[in-house]
Amino acid sequence: MEFTFLGTGAGVPSTKRNVSSTALRLDSGEVWLFDCGEATQHQILTSTITLSKVTAIFITHLHGDHIFGLPGILGSRSFQGGETELKIYGPKGLARFINTAIEISGTHLRYPLRMIEVEDGFQVQESDMDIKVALLEHGIDSFGYRIEEADKIGSLNVEKLKSLGVQPGPVYQKFKKGESITLESGNKVHASEVIGPPIKGRHIVYCGDTRFLEKTISFATNADLLIHEATFSSEKSSLAFEYYHSTTKEAAQIAKTANVKKLLLNHISSRYQEVDMEELLCEAKAVFENTEIVKDHMTVHLPLTKPSSS
Amino acid sequence: MEFTFLGTGAGVPSTKRNVSSTALRLDSGEVWLFDCGEATQHQILTSTITLSKVTAIFITHLHGDHIFGLPGILGSRSFQGGETELKIYGPKGLARFINTAIEISGTHLRYPLRMIEVEDGFQVQESDMDIKVALLEHGIDSFGYRIEEADKIGSLNVEKLKSLGVQPGPVYQKFKKGESITLESGNKVHASEVIGPPIKGRHIVYCGDTRFLEKTISFATNADLLIHEATFSSEKSSLAFEYYHSTTKEAAQIAKTANVKKLLLNHISSRYQEVDMEELLCEAKAVFENTEIVKDHMTVHLPLTKPSSS
Repeated sequence: MEFTFLGTGAGVPSTKRNVSSTALRLDSGEVWLFDCGEATQHQILTSTITLSKVTAIFITHLHGDHIFGLPGILGSRSFQGGETELKIYGPKGLARFINTAIEISGTHLRYPLRMIEVEDGFQVQESDMDIKVALLEHGIDSFGYRIEEADKIGSLNVEKLKSLGVQPGPVYQKFKKGESITLESGNKVHASEVIGPPIKGRHIVYCGDTRFLEKTISFATNADLLIHEATFSSEKSSLAFEYYHSTTKEAAQIAKTANVKKLLLNHISSRYQEVDMEELLCEAKAVFENTEIVKDHMTVHLPLTKPSSS
Repeated sequence: MEFTFLGTGAGVPSTKRNVSSTALRLDSGEVWLFDCGEATQHQILTSTITLSKVTAIFITHLHGDHIFGLPGILGSRSFQGGETELKIYGPKGLARFINTAIEISGTHLRYPLRMIEVEDGFQVQESDMDIKVALLEHGIDSFGYRIEEADKIGSLNVEKLKSLGVQPGPVYQKFKKGESITLESGNKVHASEVIGPPIKGRHIVYCGDTRFLEKTISFATNADLLIHEATFSSEKSSLAFEYYHSTTKEAAQIAKTANVKKLLLNHISSRYQEVDMEELLCEAKAVFENTEIVKDHMTVHLPLTKPSSS
């Protein structure tokens, strides 16, 4: 599982940071996008992502810097041979925008497009992921998505299997499915004896634009990764509040209190230049050490954490 | 007057050519855009164009590669301080697309936006330009725009004025306005005696996507510059016809028969690489010598032609 940041700026594109979009490549090879600002497809052109592999797009809110790349990407996915269904999750109104753009432009899609409008508390399952939605605070409806990967069955204890005289073969798969097996010797081996503890699925929280919000803490609790906006530096907290955004420090406070493992900050205002990043990062790290400020085209891997003992 | 090509590709963006947009900077400093594909504002970011100087956008047709950059550019023009009116000319349906995008995204514009839907034969005056619209042939309504700059008053014949004893001063402006002046000597000098022949305004024709069309010849007659699509090479004329596009050779035939001074080819299919350009250009030049294939970020100046004798 890996994230590629396609647009990490706020409001308008700059030469350094495009408007919002983040790609999540699942272990299956499927790609999900979170937000789709203008020129997301252009950013994909210079990445390792293939448009036809994008199977779902999650939109946090309807501001232009998060959705104006949608009409173009839908057509290009078709042009590039995408034939499998594409689902788009997002706030009420999104379907009207997409349908109008498709209709007016005469865009022909060779694949089924399904649009699902979400609201606070919405839940759905996609692949082996549970997806939960929470309303944040941004003047217009803006949502966070919590993606919870199902726990995976533990590893086979090959040493123990060998000592029990079980040779590698189809029987291994039976144990993996939790079945009990009677050996030729007549001994019965329960799956639980030869399978290690389950491997915890990864939990990720991706927040749309938002003010600092107590509710985000419970929504993000114990997540392996929190991706949160930090439009402003910590000294601009009044401005952040006024414009329904967060500061570096506020995002870090959410991460710390929610006990997440890692925090990635995006949606950085274009008032900050590359030279300011160290200071912005310091502000966040003073509160929550395991923080990074992401950049366009940066990739962050999120491996499964294997249990330390089996 | 100069053209800057912001997007010269066809259908979908590539790393070399963005989707359609062309900027025309008038001598007044105002900028007009022809078409506005996705990421036109990104192309502008790396050009010398200022968004607030864009006063009019002319859309040839509603295919996504010609309009999906509009919603974003409207918001960014406001964000960057644009306060003067912006006019958008385009086919019926364009206003619905723009209004939906603005409404759904909650985009607030600090300037008046005027949308004018055009049809075959539509005419309007903007600055000192007469603009004429012709319907082309592209499956959906696709238009060409002919921009005719008003002829400018000729140069003052300073030598003659001196020989008549007229010293430089406000009286020169009076001649420029066509007035006749009685000198102190009592002699009357008519403006026509000291003003050279009028300087012909520039005539430009910008065509949207289209099949080869006889009608384009009369529409483009004697233009100083014709900008025409050439999606395909000359051998692909059947494909061009089927998809309502033109070949290099067809565009050159229009230019030759219409007796234009210069032909610029754009909307080049992404199937053609940089290495193919020489061949495509040769095909066109074999028919009409003064042809160029434009590239993204290329600028073409179109100076006024002063009469050779005054």
